[in-house]
Amino acid sequence: MDRFAAHIDANRARYDDELRAFLRQPTIAAQGIGLEETAVLVADRLERLGAVVQILRLPGAAPVVYGALGQGERTLLIYDHYDVQPPEPLDHWITPPFEPTLRDGKLYARGVADNKGNLMLRLQAIESWLATAGQLPIRINFLVEGEEEIGSVHLAEFCQQHAGLLRADGCLWETGGRNANEQPTINCGAKGICYVELIARGAAYDLHSANATVVPNPAWRLTWALNTLKTPDGLISIPGFYDRVRPPSEADLRALQSLPLDDDILLADYGIPTFLGGVRGVERLKIHLFSPTCTICGLVSGYTGTGTKTVLPAEARAKIDFRLVPDMDPAEVVANLRAHLDAGGFSDIAILELGHERAARSDPESAVVRAMAQAILETSREEAVIYPTMAGTGPMYPVCQAFGTPVTSGCGTGYMGALVHAPNENIRMNDYWDAMRCMGAFIQAFAKA
Amino acid sequence: MDRFAAHIDANRARYDDELRAFLRQPTIAAQGIGLEETAVLVADRLERLGAVVQILRLPGAAPVVYGALGQGERTLLIYDHYDVQPPEPLDHWITPPFEPTLRDGKLYARGVADNKGNLMLRLQAIESWLATAGQLPIRINFLVEGEEEIGSVHLAEFCQQHAGLLRADGCLWETGGRNANEQPTINCGAKGICYVELIARGAAYDLHSANATVVPNPAWRLTWALNTLKTPDGLISIPGFYDRVRPPSEADLRALQSLPLDDDILLADYGIPTFLGGVRGVERLKIHLFSPTCTICGLVSGYTGTGTKTVLPAEARAKIDFRLVPDMDPAEVVANLRAHLDAGGFSDIAILELGHERAARSDPESAVVRAMAQAILETSREEAVIYPTMAGTGPMYPVCQAFGTPVTSGCGTGYMGALVHAPNENIRMNDYWDAMRCMGAFIQAFAKA
Repeated sequence: MDRFAAHIDANRARYDDELRAFLRQPTIAAQGIGLEETAVLVADRLERLGAVVQILRLPGAAPVVYGALGQGERTLLIYDHYDVQPPEPLDHWITPPFEPTLRDGKLYARGVADNKGNLMLRLQAIESWLATAGQLPIRINFLVEGEEEIGSVHLAEFCQQHAGLLRADGCLWETGGRNANEQPTINCGAKGICYVELIARGAAYDLHSANATVVPNPAWRLTWALNTLKTPDGLISIPGFYDRVRPPSEADLRALQSLPLDDDILLADYGIPTFLGGVRGVERLKIHLFSPTCTICGLVSGYTGTGTKTVLPAEARAKIDFRLVPDMDPAEVVANLRAHLDAGGFSDIAILELGHERAARSDPESAVVRAMAQAILETSREEAVIYPTMAGTGPMYPVCQAFGTPVTSGCGTGYMGALVHAPNENIRMNDYWDAMRCMGAFIQAFAKA
Repeated sequence: MDRFAAHIDANRARYDDELRAFLRQPTIAAQGIGLEETAVLVADRLERLGAVVQILRLPGAAPVVYGALGQGERTLLIYDHYDVQPPEPLDHWITPPFEPTLRDGKLYARGVADNKGNLMLRLQAIESWLATAGQLPIRINFLVEGEEEIGSVHLAEFCQQHAGLLRADGCLWETGGRNANEQPTINCGAKGICYVELIARGAAYDLHSANATVVPNPAWRLTWALNTLKTPDGLISIPGFYDRVRPPSEADLRALQSLPLDDDILLADYGIPTFLGGVRGVERLKIHLFSPTCTICGLVSGYTGTGTKTVLPAEARAKIDFRLVPDMDPAEVVANLRAHLDAGGFSDIAILELGHERAARSDPESAVVRAMAQAILETSREEAVIYPTMAGTGPMYPVCQAFGTPVTSGCGTGYMGALVHAPNENIRMNDYWDAMRCMGAFIQAFAKA
């Protein structure tokens, strides 16, 4: 491993350049920007490692890049994605989102933390491994998709069609990094999601607002409809919403007790006086990890510029994400939402389905988790904190749970200040090199685990 | 009057060019664009008519242009404004908003109908009058402001400070034109307005929406707060809101009976099956002219682009206009709104006051109204329909009612398809020349009335 680490050090400038070039390519799934171009970049990179690469397509979907390399008894599946969140609001970025910029040891760019940095450092780690050890002790199959940030809308179908490509002894998930206490973390699960857009329509075009006396206002219709979805105490009021929620297991609750608490650090960073309902500590973690949500992610209607415009809008839209826990079914959430709106007199509100995934969980004591914990201990001299699930979402259900593949996170640059999905997304470059070294230790540990 | 009309005809090309040049100058009060430049254009134009012109200023306000010309017993005040609404949404315009374009006899441009066209045709009518009759038989004082589209925020103070400039025997209001039945109209009143922006704030920056489990969402706070302002049956639920509403007078209700009905024309144009509450006919007119409103003119929070972005917004904003009837007080509306939000647990929602005006009414049988009705009859051979008030708003209270000046509308290009405040705003050029001829007849009639 000393030669491996030395090879990384000797190639830092080149690896750094390569990462920046990758970040300069916009790849915005929500806006259909740069997907083909980036898939080709990823495929080329895998081929340069000697992988057998396929660019796989479903109709209307961004390409999936699949690359197989290495030999050995064990098979590791690595799941990453090459797409990034939209960069808006652009005027909040200190430097442009697609011009990677280093400031105070941090590299700023859209997608650097989620997930282009992790993907690139894992590829570069394998390059350094091959350059120093000659060959891999395990089979590694990369599954790199381009629709993660829009809810992996085609991946479940892809996974069903290509089951043979997915079977593995363990899966390294896209995420990895440190918690608010700066402890290295491992996650063994993900929440599901159901992302919809609610659309209300009024007159055929925007009218002078004097007409609001007698002409329907879709912004009001939307407000009233939204108000029926969730009460100010946070309870989601769609009938049936909580019916299938699997309560946390004994093991989940035990795991909670061993997790570090970071309330005050988070409150200070978020700039809020308290969490919702005043919860703290274990109670906050329990809600955060094991409760579903209903979140307005976006609202727009009428005039949103400076000052006043007296307009009666023709349309109003709300983007809503529901985060789901096991065993909630996204299709059932949409059906319940439709029935609820209809019953409340809101059949005029259209629902546009924009993405859905089921929640997933795997064994926190699996071989792949143990290998990651060992790699973290070896390279950072720290014990990893093992979370039963993350609060975020990914296609862990179709990629892993459907095949019984255990999952670990790790070998990533995540940290509390990463501003994932927000302006000024960034990673600390020290974390990048640490995660790359950890990747080598993980390959070695998983081969023997 | 024959020589006057002939002079207009002989100068059509020049007048048309001048109108287009005026429309090419963006003058967007809400965005602070082009106000000084346009005030100078208006002042120069008045000076070329021989007016004594003043450009008057209050701190922080767009300039008011005042021009006095003519001699005679009677004084006519003409109120117009040189500012226009914001052109957004830009992608809905068939041709760019500040590139005036003629299609099928209609001239398209932002502000052509509201109010640059009317202002220019009145100025050009006076030019043709002076060129053919030598001198005016009345005194005409132009009051042209640049903040009408943002609620004439400084005009009440201006009017108090310059009372001497405003006294007149009658006022010609900025508006004029035809109703949905193509009948010429006269309005003798205007609703008031109170325009506010409600602002909810959450975390210091946009977070990943996975954090919605425990971090407040300002989009939800705003939704819940808005929901308490108005119920789905249209009732405004702010305590005290209706307390000062002056019910329609006997004369108002009598006037309603004589107004033409145009329900089906409007429903077809707006593309809606029914009016709110299913009202029609006189009942619809009664609500439209004599009821106050509470309208969401704009909503914005989080991600509003294409597709999905899983973001927990840091801020949510709603722009709201209240249209007021006599004797409602805008300051009291804001105070009641604040008290209502506080009482409902929404003291976290900030209120930004963006403009306010009181409603105004004047005698539908005044000399200035009679002169306008006579001018319309003479030039178009049609009886004008006299409305006790328009549903729209203007600073009629500080400009006229405070001095007891009777008001008429007329000599304008308004028609149902004008798309005022909306993309593709336009006038029919035939109306432009008709209104210009009417202006001559009105000057003559008012001199003798």
